[in-house]
Amino acid sequence: MTTAKRDTYTPETLLAVAVRVFNERGYDGTSMEHLSKAAGISKSSIYHHVAGKEELLRRAVSRALDGLFAILDESGATRGRAIERVEYVTRRTVEVLIAELPYVTLLLRVRGNTKTERWALERRREFDQRVAELLKAAVADGDLRSDVDIRLATRLLFGMVNSLVEWYRPLPDGGAEGERLADTVVQLAFDGMKSGQSGR
Amino acid sequence: MTTAKRDTYTPETLLAVAVRVFNERGYDGTSMEHLSKAAGISKSSIYHHVAGKEELLRRAVSRALDGLFAILDESGATRGRAIERVEYVTRRTVEVLIAELPYVTLLLRVRGNTKTERWALERRREFDQRVAELLKAAVADGDLRSDVDIRLATRLLFGMVNSLVEWYRPLPDGGAEGERLADTVVQLAFDGMKSGQSGR
Repeated sequence: MTTAKRDTYTPETLLAVAVRVFNERGYDGTSMEHLSKAAGISKSSIYHHVAGKEELLRRAVSRALDGLFAILDESGATRGRAIERVEYVTRRTVEVLIAELPYVTLLLRVRGNTKTERWALERRREFDQRVAELLKAAVADGDLRSDVDIRLATRLLFGMVNSLVEWYRPLPDGGAEGERLADTVVQLAFDGMKSGQSGR
Repeated sequence: MTTAKRDTYTPETLLAVAVRVFNERGYDGTSMEHLSKAAGISKSSIYHHVAGKEELLRRAVSRALDGLFAILDESGATRGRAIERVEYVTRRTVEVLIAELPYVTLLLRVRGNTKTERWALERRREFDQRVAELLKAAVADGDLRSDVDIRLATRLLFGMVNSLVEWYRPLPDGGAEGERLADTVVQLAFDGMKSGQSGR
């Protein structure tokens, strides 16, 4: 039995608890009972806030997706040379990953067993596609190498960026560290690890 | 009930079935019952081959780890300039990932709940550490940029390389495709995505 505490949750604080449990146990492995225990309120209290765990998943991945898609509307992503826009988007993607770490972690672990998961996968693909188009424009400008398949380059770029959710743990200095990390990712992805190359 | 078929499994073929189920359901989420159903033989037949599912996990991740550690003893990894050795190890890591895809996938998803999982994580860290040392030597030679933290660079490099297990699916032409992929990973990781840089 759960010793139910008074339900003082807001939609945001309940979502934060749910996302933590989803990331620990996997979405498929999480029951309403697990959520109730973790939140310390009864299942019926949770149902007072949401229709069920799929709604919590939808809200959580929406938060991650909204953060990512918002980048594409920022002026750094819409104005200037394609290479500058793609570097900007890469840097901001790292920053959003860090700022919304548990939400993006959940998004990246979604597998496609439910309608919400399939929708999330579809939106992720759409985001990747938008970045791939930017990469393609930068290749057309002659700024990115043309001897690498764009789809493959996009996957490897996101492979590098998204790996952050597996090992990055925020330090107390938060902001400054995240900025340095974003800089490093952009440098390595675009200029490579070798020394003495252009742009430095 | 499982309709048991005659047990014609060898240790290798049974392992292949177990690894497929572990990757589909997660190791924690897999029971001997699941393995018995997937293999089409009774649980007692499986116990005839192995002591339990943890032994199957140990054998599977050992296969991945043996493949990875063997790279470090190859002459390409032990002779020559550090930058050449680190490029060689990166290329061969991609090739081993592709050749042993289900086994490395399982290794990379291990979480540390059992003794075998903790041992596997420890061995993975050891491999990453060996590669980090090579990177450090290449920085000391002046061949890799010195303005990036080695631990961070190692993590981002493996983030890119290991992401393969999430999206790479072998095509019928197998070998040639894997070689091209390994070339691309090495080019992007060391020379970056920008055009007109050194070494090309």
